[in-house]
Amino acid sequence: MSQLIKRFSITDPFWKRYEDLLSDVVVPYQEAVLRDEVPGAEKSHAIENFRLAADVIKNGKEPGGFYGLVFQDSDVAKWIEAASYSLIRHPDSKLEERIDQVIDTIRDSQHEDGYVNTYFTLKEPGRQWTNLQEAHELYCAGHMIEAAVAYYEATGKTVLLETMKRMADHIYDLFIVRKKPGYSGHPEIELALMRLYRATGDKRYMELSKHLTDVRGQDPDYFVKENAEKGWKIWGMDPELREYAQNQCPVREMTKATGHAVRATYLYTAMADLALSTDDEELKEASERLFKNISEKQMYITGGIGATSNGEAFTTDYDLPNGTVYAETCASIGLIFFARKMLDLKTDGRYSDVMERALYNTVLAGMQLDGKRFFYVNPLEVIPGISGVVPDCRHVLPERPGWYDCACCPPNVARMVGSLAEYAWSVKDGTVFSHLFVGGELDLSDTLGSKIKVETRYPYGETVRYTVEGNPVSLALRIPSWSSTCLLTVDGKKTDVSAEDGYQYIKCKKEAVLYLNMAPRYCYANSMVASDSGKAAVMRGPLVYCAEGTDNGGDVIGLRFKDGGRLESLPLSDDLMGTVKVEAEGFREKTSDELYSSERPKYDPAAITLIPYYSWGNRGKNQMRVWLPVR
Amino acid sequence: MSQLIKRFSITDPFWKRYEDLLSDVVVPYQEAVLRDEVPGAEKSHAIENFRLAADVIKNGKEPGGFYGLVFQDSDVAKWIEAASYSLIRHPDSKLEERIDQVIDTIRDSQHEDGYVNTYFTLKEPGRQWTNLQEAHELYCAGHMIEAAVAYYEATGKTVLLETMKRMADHIYDLFIVRKKPGYSGHPEIELALMRLYRATGDKRYMELSKHLTDVRGQDPDYFVKENAEKGWKIWGMDPELREYAQNQCPVREMTKATGHAVRATYLYTAMADLALSTDDEELKEASERLFKNISEKQMYITGGIGATSNGEAFTTDYDLPNGTVYAETCASIGLIFFARKMLDLKTDGRYSDVMERALYNTVLAGMQLDGKRFFYVNPLEVIPGISGVVPDCRHVLPERPGWYDCACCPPNVARMVGSLAEYAWSVKDGTVFSHLFVGGELDLSDTLGSKIKVETRYPYGETVRYTVEGNPVSLALRIPSWSSTCLLTVDGKKTDVSAEDGYQYIKCKKEAVLYLNMAPRYCYANSMVASDSGKAAVMRGPLVYCAEGTDNGGDVIGLRFKDGGRLESLPLSDDLMGTVKVEAEGFREKTSDELYSSERPKYDPAAITLIPYYSWGNRGKNQMRVWLPVR
Repeated sequence: MSQLIKRFSITDPFWKRYEDLLSDVVVPYQEAVLRDEVPGAEKSHAIENFRLAADVIKNGKEPGGFYGLVFQDSDVAKWIEAASYSLIRHPDSKLEERIDQVIDTIRDSQHEDGYVNTYFTLKEPGRQWTNLQEAHELYCAGHMIEAAVAYYEATGKTVLLETMKRMADHIYDLFIVRKKPGYSGHPEIELALMRLYRATGDKRYMELSKHLTDVRGQDPDYFVKENAEKGWKIWGMDPELREYAQNQCPVREMTKATGHAVRATYLYTAMADLALSTDDEELKEASERLFKNISEKQMYITGGIGATSNGEAFTTDYDLPNGTVYAETCASIGLIFFARKMLDLKTDGRYSDVMERALYNTVLAGMQLDGKRFFYVNPLEVIPGISGVVPDCRHVLPERPGWYDCACCPPNVARMVGSLAEYAWSVKDGTVFSHLFVGGELDLSDTLGSKIKVETRYPYGETVRYTVEGNPVSLALRIPSWSSTCLLTVDGKKTDVSAEDGYQYIKCKKEAVLYLNMAPRYCYANSMVASDSGKAAVMRGPLVYCAEGTDNGGDVIGLRFKDGGRLESLPLSDDLMGTVKVEAEGFREKTSDELYSSERPKYDPAAITLIPYYSWGNRGKNQMRVWLPVR
Repeated sequence: MSQLIKRFSITDPFWKRYEDLLSDVVVPYQEAVLRDEVPGAEKSHAIENFRLAADVIKNGKEPGGFYGLVFQDSDVAKWIEAASYSLIRHPDSKLEERIDQVIDTIRDSQHEDGYVNTYFTLKEPGRQWTNLQEAHELYCAGHMIEAAVAYYEATGKTVLLETMKRMADHIYDLFIVRKKPGYSGHPEIELALMRLYRATGDKRYMELSKHLTDVRGQDPDYFVKENAEKGWKIWGMDPELREYAQNQCPVREMTKATGHAVRATYLYTAMADLALSTDDEELKEASERLFKNISEKQMYITGGIGATSNGEAFTTDYDLPNGTVYAETCASIGLIFFARKMLDLKTDGRYSDVMERALYNTVLAGMQLDGKRFFYVNPLEVIPGISGVVPDCRHVLPERPGWYDCACCPPNVARMVGSLAEYAWSVKDGTVFSHLFVGGELDLSDTLGSKIKVETRYPYGETVRYTVEGNPVSLALRIPSWSSTCLLTVDGKKTDVSAEDGYQYIKCKKEAVLYLNMAPRYCYANSMVASDSGKAAVMRGPLVYCAEGTDNGGDVIGLRFKDGGRLESLPLSDDLMGTVKVEAEGFREKTSDELYSSERPKYDPAAITLIPYYSWGNRGKNQMRVWLPVR
């Protein structure tokens, strides 16, 4: 996977800042949290769990001392993965040394049969593999496999890779050789095994991934039976909630995204990956159906998915409430994984558009601009005093907390930012695909004999300039569906844009320049979306905008867009780490004392200041709204 | 209480239908349910519980066989109360005989010390009074006291009254003589004891009511302590949820309505009643604060209260979501009780306006037009496929079920309809107050030497004609705040309406005619109510209207009101048991396939048909919306 990360050095102001933040702040901060060195943050104990487990395995100590959730190990895995990406662009021998030490500890915690998991080593020895529904063993293994592959690809070091190959072999033996029935409660292992297969070339890992994907839902009662037999529990999750766990039917028969949105998208990612790698038409069609259902019926304008906190889950078509929403950061990351694999299956702007939407809005909103605080839930409407307070909105926090007891989102954002190149680019049959517009230099000297330099101030600037050095390049440039007009010059010649499926295929000797339409625009939801009836949102380029109290005299709920009103981009400012705000022509409803009145509301004209959604919640608690009523 | 019920015979088409329904359908149907004779309805077993309990007490049988919730007894109580009101206007010796038999059984289930409660007699003997928080003993006693008073006032029979006086004495002995600490988990006993006091003249019952009200929250940890001691549980409710149980502070210090909305309003009703009866200024101020908070910050336009299903509870100011709402039927009944007592404290149209709003909208919506099915939850927006289905709306049913395992609402609606006269009228110091406009004849021959006949087609007609027979009468006519213009003629002379605090005081010899403004009108919520931003609702007279799919080609979510658009009352039709529909000028958004689009939505002009909210959900599952966006 990290081949493109190595080849692509990011230079544009927007992403360079994030990349530096990853190395300077996020990775060290998350390491400190994992080592329990951040005062005030939730206790993690995740690295200490491995140390204690190594003591059990290596030194024969008594099991005990586990702290955290059953999937605490995965926090270490995701941090190693993010740190691996960071090391590629920001070599740091001390960090690498510390990671090596952690990896040695992980290796030392491995059982003789290859098994790695601190929860079962320390807290529930002997109960391995008896609770696939709840215990996240395959999930933790999957994340550590991803970490192992990333660290190997970044550094060439194989300790963690060998460790996790042994774990994968253990799982292979269990499910393939010894034919244990069942599948993972939380998908992740399936996509991780595909990465391991590609890193090692060992087809058994693909076989195992395919097995764990295909066996899912073949017996929709598997968790019910497991539950009846196991005699212990972690949370006591209901095994009958099949849609929650995506085991209501075999994956090939699925027509609608259901259940826990992170589990769902991780599963769908593996399905799309397997569809391509095994050339499986049925799996491809199922993946396409699921992608279509999400992107056309169950996705917020911000690329958020999972409308309810109850199960952190998809609900049903067009049910997209703004204030009680879940839209977990990790779920949008999962959606990006899924979209990226769909893009490998078929080059189509529908996939890159969704990838971009989720990345620039929900995923970036998941992290405070300084990289230190994180959102789990990404609401489209926040009212302090209600959000985070009343029961139905208790999960909707108006400010990012520093860490979570269930800390899946922060390191997930970190690894997404760190591997951006893999989403921005792909190379296939000699054609270089530019999926996302990120400034930097892509070095393909060894394969195509070319370097491609990209200069842009995206997502704020409208120009994306590709300069080719060396051999001419076949380029496929994504033409975003949101850019109503696009100009393109190739080697100085104006070229008609007639993007097939969202991509413009060109041959470029020296320079191609793409001019996107960056005029801010109103967006409207489908009339079936009850929560957005009569409302509009504003977008500019890939960015969804929102109104925040700070810029609008405190009150945002009383603001209305003027129907067809003027939208104006303000000059790029240093505010919010560099942003283009948008001003919208609108109104402010005059306040009154009465709860209900038959007097027509009065309005004052108001210039509404909008900021990019990803930057909300960086200036203290205040009202925020993406969808404003139009009058 | 039932003095006015006896004096007032209803004749107008609207309420006469409901009164007849009560006697012909609701009371017999509910009796059949309580006797488990309705196929398909939830099992009740409530009368059988009393029979089994009588067997234990009278015949020394072994305890056992209880079925239902801990407050199952109260269903019988509320049915007896409703039936008592029915008997006043529709004498029915067979029904009376059957009630007498049930009452004999209740009496036979009474312990020697006066205790009556089938749950503890059959299921938890020996655990009486150890779980005030959950066990609803005082609640059930309260409802049976209300039933006893009602049946006594309707028939003059004293068996149940004597039985419940003994139970009240038992409670008096417990809390006053033996000074047991604590208070009821679910208020109700407090208001019931005030009725018992008025029916019997025994001041100890008022003393006990005052004690149980005033002691509440003096020790906010009472339930915590009880919980630590009791060693058993019913649901295991969290004793720390003080606001839920209204014991966060002494009642006199309360400033904001909190917690379970039915519990809250029952408590506030007793507070207002005690404030008047004991001339307690502090309690009066507290009641007024709480009423103001509800009616100015936490009430739906339909008079529904309790914004969240989580605890069936109040949340916070201006949090009034339409689709995830709770707005329990019983809570609006509680609000009417509260408003009625406030009206006794001070004659002010603010109270009667709220009473009318809750009665004509939420309470009536609680019952199907045929009297056989009931809503517990009263949403302001329903989308089949989402409402009743997705987790956050699972409680929002798009159709009325026949009965509930927790069957508080159906008999509560019945007793409200049956005692309408008590809310429509009051007489104080020789003045007759007309609070609600109900056609019929009020016979005050024995006290004022007059009869007052009211002719009206309210809530549809605009004229209310009072005809006086006998002595001239001092009348205080309510002038609803919603009627922007009012004409009044008194004995043929046009009279200026200058209603003080919502009431017009007149002296009438023969005839007074009030002409209300029944033009349909748009209503707007306070700009702080985020759920209603940019929307309007339509009212006509006291009725809130809504758009239902059946009248509007299925889709309601795509409808928009035209800003300042024409509203027209359609002729009174037989539809929906006799109704005036309203047609609003508006638009229908054209459907599109895209989930989000930057194309401005297109609209077709549309005549929107609106029906009274109380009549929604009588024609099968379909979309429904009270608040429509305005464009």
